[in-house]
Amino acid sequence: MNHDYNKGSLDLHREFGGKIEIKSKVKLENRDDLSLAYTPGVAEVCREISRDESLAKVYTLKKNTIAIVSDGSAILGIGNLGAKASIPVMEGKAAILKEFAGVDAFPICIESQDIEEIIRTVKNIAPVFGGINLEDIAGPKCFQIEERLRAELDIPVMHDDQWGAATVALTGFINALKLAEKNKEDVVVVVSGVGAAGVATARLLIEYGVRNIIFIDSKGVIYAKRDDLTKEKLELINAVNAVDESLTDLASALVGADVFIGLSKPLVVTSEMIKSMNQKAIIFALANPTPEIMPEDALAAGAFIVATGRSDYPNQLNNSLVFPGFWRGMLDAQNSDTYKGIDNKIFVKIAENLAAHVKDISVNKILPDMFDKEVANIVAKTVTD
Amino acid sequence: MNHDYNKGSLDLHREFGGKIEIKSKVKLENRDDLSLAYTPGVAEVCREISRDESLAKVYTLKKNTIAIVSDGSAILGIGNLGAKASIPVMEGKAAILKEFAGVDAFPICIESQDIEEIIRTVKNIAPVFGGINLEDIAGPKCFQIEERLRAELDIPVMHDDQWGAATVALTGFINALKLAEKNKEDVVVVVSGVGAAGVATARLLIEYGVRNIIFIDSKGVIYAKRDDLTKEKLELINAVNAVDESLTDLASALVGADVFIGLSKPLVVTSEMIKSMNQKAIIFALANPTPEIMPEDALAAGAFIVATGRSDYPNQLNNSLVFPGFWRGMLDAQNSDTYKGIDNKIFVKIAENLAAHVKDISVNKILPDMFDKEVANIVAKTVTD
Repeated sequence: MNHDYNKGSLDLHREFGGKIEIKSKVKLENRDDLSLAYTPGVAEVCREISRDESLAKVYTLKKNTIAIVSDGSAILGIGNLGAKASIPVMEGKAAILKEFAGVDAFPICIESQDIEEIIRTVKNIAPVFGGINLEDIAGPKCFQIEERLRAELDIPVMHDDQWGAATVALTGFINALKLAEKNKEDVVVVVSGVGAAGVATARLLIEYGVRNIIFIDSKGVIYAKRDDLTKEKLELINAVNAVDESLTDLASALVGADVFIGLSKPLVVTSEMIKSMNQKAIIFALANPTPEIMPEDALAAGAFIVATGRSDYPNQLNNSLVFPGFWRGMLDAQNSDTYKGIDNKIFVKIAENLAAHVKDISVNKILPDMFDKEVANIVAKTVTD
Repeated sequence: MNHDYNKGSLDLHREFGGKIEIKSKVKLENRDDLSLAYTPGVAEVCREISRDESLAKVYTLKKNTIAIVSDGSAILGIGNLGAKASIPVMEGKAAILKEFAGVDAFPICIESQDIEEIIRTVKNIAPVFGGINLEDIAGPKCFQIEERLRAELDIPVMHDDQWGAATVALTGFINALKLAEKNKEDVVVVVSGVGAAGVATARLLIEYGVRNIIFIDSKGVIYAKRDDLTKEKLELINAVNAVDESLTDLASALVGADVFIGLSKPLVVTSEMIKSMNQKAIIFALANPTPEIMPEDALAAGAFIVATGRSDYPNQLNNSLVFPGFWRGMLDAQNSDTYKGIDNKIFVKIAENLAAHVKDISVNKILPDMFDKEVANIVAKTVTD
């Protein structure tokens, strides 16, 4: 399936020579135009901004422009290919941001994978931008980069692989529970894969009120007594109910579980594991491009609802439902007194509002349509309200 | 005069919220569109670039996009106002680049004025760009930054305040000499102001074949024996004929001189100084916004030709004649075997070709029209040939 798109995508990129372009919003047809948009008139705009730096958000592209920042260390599901190879993904996000939410976005692909170097580079180029969208930066350094930049910059910073993915997952989770007629307080959720997206998804599940979560990383089920845990993993297991220590691996964890959320590796879930789960099992198999179990196999084994990251199956969990509206809202909010910081609560609210927007909810439709023009508005309004 | 544009320019910038926007070149109307422009198809484009990094110039915005880099340390004629205050100028250049030559350009305004920090930041963000246009960076650090980036990056780097300004000045100089019927080998040229633009202009005059040049900086006439000379100033005086040591200041240097090129301070040239010059005196009074002498005063004192940086007088020396076509050519050349380095020779050739393009040459028209669509083509063709 993906193979079908390979040649078409190469052809498209070659034909257009990249997907985004920069255009002038003002006309430059005669000397008067130039005197207003450029010298001598522009000097007064420079002086005004030097007198009050906040006016950069009024008079310049900073008003509506964000940076999409990557070091290419974790490109999609394909790995660490470096800065140049990450450009097509960042351009794609920039195109989506403009088309879906009217946000101007420019790719900043950094020729260094060192944490301090990335942080100082982003801080150095921040003056032009109204926000920083981090993208395809490997864990665990992505956590530190986001945390530091939020603390050290005066513009919003959001790592979309964490929060976009987590918010869409929670949106689907809310509607899936509704269909299965189960309560968030009671369900047992197995989260397999505790990288950037796994940690953020777990944080939002916890914020939403889920308490029975079993975490699984490459070494198996996570207990507090394991001595190899990152700060993020420790924080998560301390926030949920203690896990039965007889559980060791994915197969044992899934026995009797209600929900599987995989952000891990292709085809690690078997039909037998699905069969061992509680009735009305909910399967989010989000590894890309090949999920933890193929939807047809999960359904054949009795799964009630299956969602993946793929566009060729129902229930595609796609960040594009969230990040365009999120940035639309952040840029709009920044220009008013309503600007607030970014925390787990805002993403949970976005998920709740998106979930409520799906009127014709069914096992094959737990998410809003990506091309529904209302989606970005709902997300933006949640941010600004 | 400039005052008339202040309010209009503030209104324009406020109305549009900046002058440039980022647009998608590809349509994103359905799942198939997204599958080609974004996931899953885009993954193959990433893989191709990781196999051969030169393909970034084929498949991404790197093909047609440059960075306009500033630290805001020397904004126009108004001084060191910092990164945010420099944005309107960089956006204006981006708008001009697209409108005049189809070049995509994005402002990188750096929150540091340290040489090493600027260099490392530009190197870190270079992957996305096909060229680096340095802008409004104070001398003498601008020389070192340009030199280092040229050596350390594999894309063209050009400081427009040096080379754009110098190339336009040489263009006007060539046609002015033609009208005055004087030879480049014989004329005595006084260059007042030996900053970024002054040094570059002098380098091009020397490359063009001018040998009688008297340099004047804030301390007066420059001789080799002065012990406070920068590397750049020493190089210049070693390349021209020795200066009569009885000359001390601007007034004494101008006696009998043929050409005055001022890149210095407002109103430092008097009518008496003009009267003391050789017949058919050529005056380039390029301080902005107020020139070294007002054109009407210079003409009243007997000057033959007067040029300034202003749009409200004839003979405006404006970088916009050069940088759009220069970058058009550099981006086009990069994709073929004809790409060459940047040196004095190429700028002299551009000036010669631009000067020759002015068919109806007169004392009030020594330069091409800025809105002549052929100008960018001529410059681009000079670069690629």
